[in-house]
Amino acid sequence: MIYLDNSATTKPYKEVLETYVTVSEQYFGNPSSLHSLGLEAEKVLTKSREVVAKLLGVQSKEVIFTSGGTEGNNLAIKGIALEHSSRGKHLITSVIEHASSYETFSELEKKGFEVTYLPVNQSGHISIEELKRALRSDTVLVSLIHVNNETGAAQPIEEIGKVLKEYPKVFFHVDHVQGITKVPVHLKNNHIDLCTISGHKFHGVKGTGALYVREGITLSPMLHGGVQEARFRAGTENVPGMAALAKALRMSTDKAQERKDHLIQLQQKAVNGLQEIDGVVVNSGIGDRHAPHIVNFSIPGAKPEVIIQALSHQQVYVSTKSACSSKLSSPSRILMEMGLGNKRAESAIRISFSYDTKNEEIEAFIKVMKKEVPKLLQVMR
Amino acid sequence: MIYLDNSATTKPYKEVLETYVTVSEQYFGNPSSLHSLGLEAEKVLTKSREVVAKLLGVQSKEVIFTSGGTEGNNLAIKGIALEHSSRGKHLITSVIEHASSYETFSELEKKGFEVTYLPVNQSGHISIEELKRALRSDTVLVSLIHVNNETGAAQPIEEIGKVLKEYPKVFFHVDHVQGITKVPVHLKNNHIDLCTISGHKFHGVKGTGALYVREGITLSPMLHGGVQEARFRAGTENVPGMAALAKALRMSTDKAQERKDHLIQLQQKAVNGLQEIDGVVVNSGIGDRHAPHIVNFSIPGAKPEVIIQALSHQQVYVSTKSACSSKLSSPSRILMEMGLGNKRAESAIRISFSYDTKNEEIEAFIKVMKKEVPKLLQVMR
Repeated sequence: MIYLDNSATTKPYKEVLETYVTVSEQYFGNPSSLHSLGLEAEKVLTKSREVVAKLLGVQSKEVIFTSGGTEGNNLAIKGIALEHSSRGKHLITSVIEHASSYETFSELEKKGFEVTYLPVNQSGHISIEELKRALRSDTVLVSLIHVNNETGAAQPIEEIGKVLKEYPKVFFHVDHVQGITKVPVHLKNNHIDLCTISGHKFHGVKGTGALYVREGITLSPMLHGGVQEARFRAGTENVPGMAALAKALRMSTDKAQERKDHLIQLQQKAVNGLQEIDGVVVNSGIGDRHAPHIVNFSIPGAKPEVIIQALSHQQVYVSTKSACSSKLSSPSRILMEMGLGNKRAESAIRISFSYDTKNEEIEAFIKVMKKEVPKLLQVMR
Repeated sequence: MIYLDNSATTKPYKEVLETYVTVSEQYFGNPSSLHSLGLEAEKVLTKSREVVAKLLGVQSKEVIFTSGGTEGNNLAIKGIALEHSSRGKHLITSVIEHASSYETFSELEKKGFEVTYLPVNQSGHISIEELKRALRSDTVLVSLIHVNNETGAAQPIEEIGKVLKEYPKVFFHVDHVQGITKVPVHLKNNHIDLCTISGHKFHGVKGTGALYVREGITLSPMLHGGVQEARFRAGTENVPGMAALAKALRMSTDKAQERKDHLIQLQQKAVNGLQEIDGVVVNSGIGDRHAPHIVNFSIPGAKPEVIIQALSHQQVYVSTKSACSSKLSSPSRILMEMGLGNKRAESAIRISFSYDTKNEEIEAFIKVMKKEVPKLLQVMR
């Protein structure tokens, strides 16, 4: 099996599942219960929060546990927009956000908010000048995806942070779901107010995530009820899930340090190999402004489902665009917005690595591609 | 260890955790991915949904997976209120709802909805006549907790369903979090449109739940993004969590059938024992109109935290009111609404059983109580 769909989801680390099971069995109490079983569960939750906070370089009380990236993005965007609407109803985002942000902004537009969608260039980057022009006195939020989930294009968060430092009333949310453990971002130094991460993207378990909310910021909650998660997110805490999240983040951060250049090498190898194949166009870039774990390419004229099936039969797993919208048979919104045209946007394939992906797996993938692509092109003619 | 806090949370069954781990390892794909790993994960999800649907007596497509009871209640109540507000803005609930419903209604009041909170009598039951009087032409939702989480009082869902059958435009939501596998309710026969359950209350894992939404009903989603869960709930599906939910529901339903009278016996034994102790007043009832797994009692004048700590030192785990509000040191809202007075509402203790709770555990609990309560009363004097 050659699994090259790590941006859709990753396999949980063995140690992460062990943590999950241990906590589920030994610390199964409800952290809100006052007896010692409850207190012990609460300690595990507190410890997990401390670990996540430390790895993010923030305070424990600034970490809100969620059920995943979609919830994090929804909570950050709606939470800020609805809570601070008296200050203004203008929001800024980009045209290449993940559906969990993009659809949330569409929803807010229906509720009377005005949204500026910053365009991107052919490499998938917004322009700092356009951002500056978009900022208004009634702007309350800038929300941007750091690493795009389809192309790996990384927005210049440091530069954006510098611009937003001059606008202390504008909140800055970063969708860091694809970036975390791949492209480091210092939350505190870059004027970031809110930041979303999702456990299953870095070998944690599904249904877990965290939202960093800078101290002092108030949010309108989506889930009302108990007083958990600083009242920002009611509901019995998923203690084993969050312990697993902390473990996965620690392990992935360690791997990122040990194997810093590994993903870059895999990416270079994949791009080189793909460029040798007739009919294949690489859509994503490499280097500083791109995450090292994603390569996006098209086979103009081919149906991506057919390529995916052909590769899947060889136990090579890749994807079309975002998993969250892969069942919608429309061209990739992201590639269209990059101006790559319908043919490329319709036939886009994404491969995505983890730190455990092997060089040989990329070689085998290229080998399979070299065999399958000519067959596909043959059929199409 | 004598764990009598099963209404706060239950210990996951060993087999449930095994299912969780197996699915996490072997079916870790994203169900939205088009390759075979994705399809296999989707099959597990579909199978889990079928199992839950069958056990609830509904169709698969009527089961929406959630992150738990709080999300289920929020989604049902806000989902209906916001989606159908053009038909009316009047909502009916009761004064003894769980915080995840109660606080959601408070929030909707701020948004211009009018909410009628039905009162309850001393046994914790609403009056059918009052419900009938409350129904108006602009009523869109009746949302009621089936089994109250503090007292075990079970609302007469069948009678309520009969009344609401005459009001086809009014949606009926049941918070079945404490009732499921303890007090059966036929969803289809009782005109129930929406029903919330939570996995960790019946030996599933935390962070899992389901909302039954009758076919054809539309809801305003809380989480926007991908097209998962019939577009009612975006986000990568928690496949292992939902497989665990299905497993737990099947096992608990089986136990409920095998050991039908076991909880009733435990409850009778506990009530008999408690009634023998000077200074203890039992607040909850037994019999048809009460769930068999909850007993609520007070030691007027005593601080419940002190009782909980004293029992906790003996490895007996019980709770004050609801876990979700146990850290708020106010009297129980539920007991106040039942008219039991401040003294009883301030000193209320809940014990709650699972099908695995043993007779000897109740005997041991009573023994500890008989030793500890006189000491506590001594200190108070």
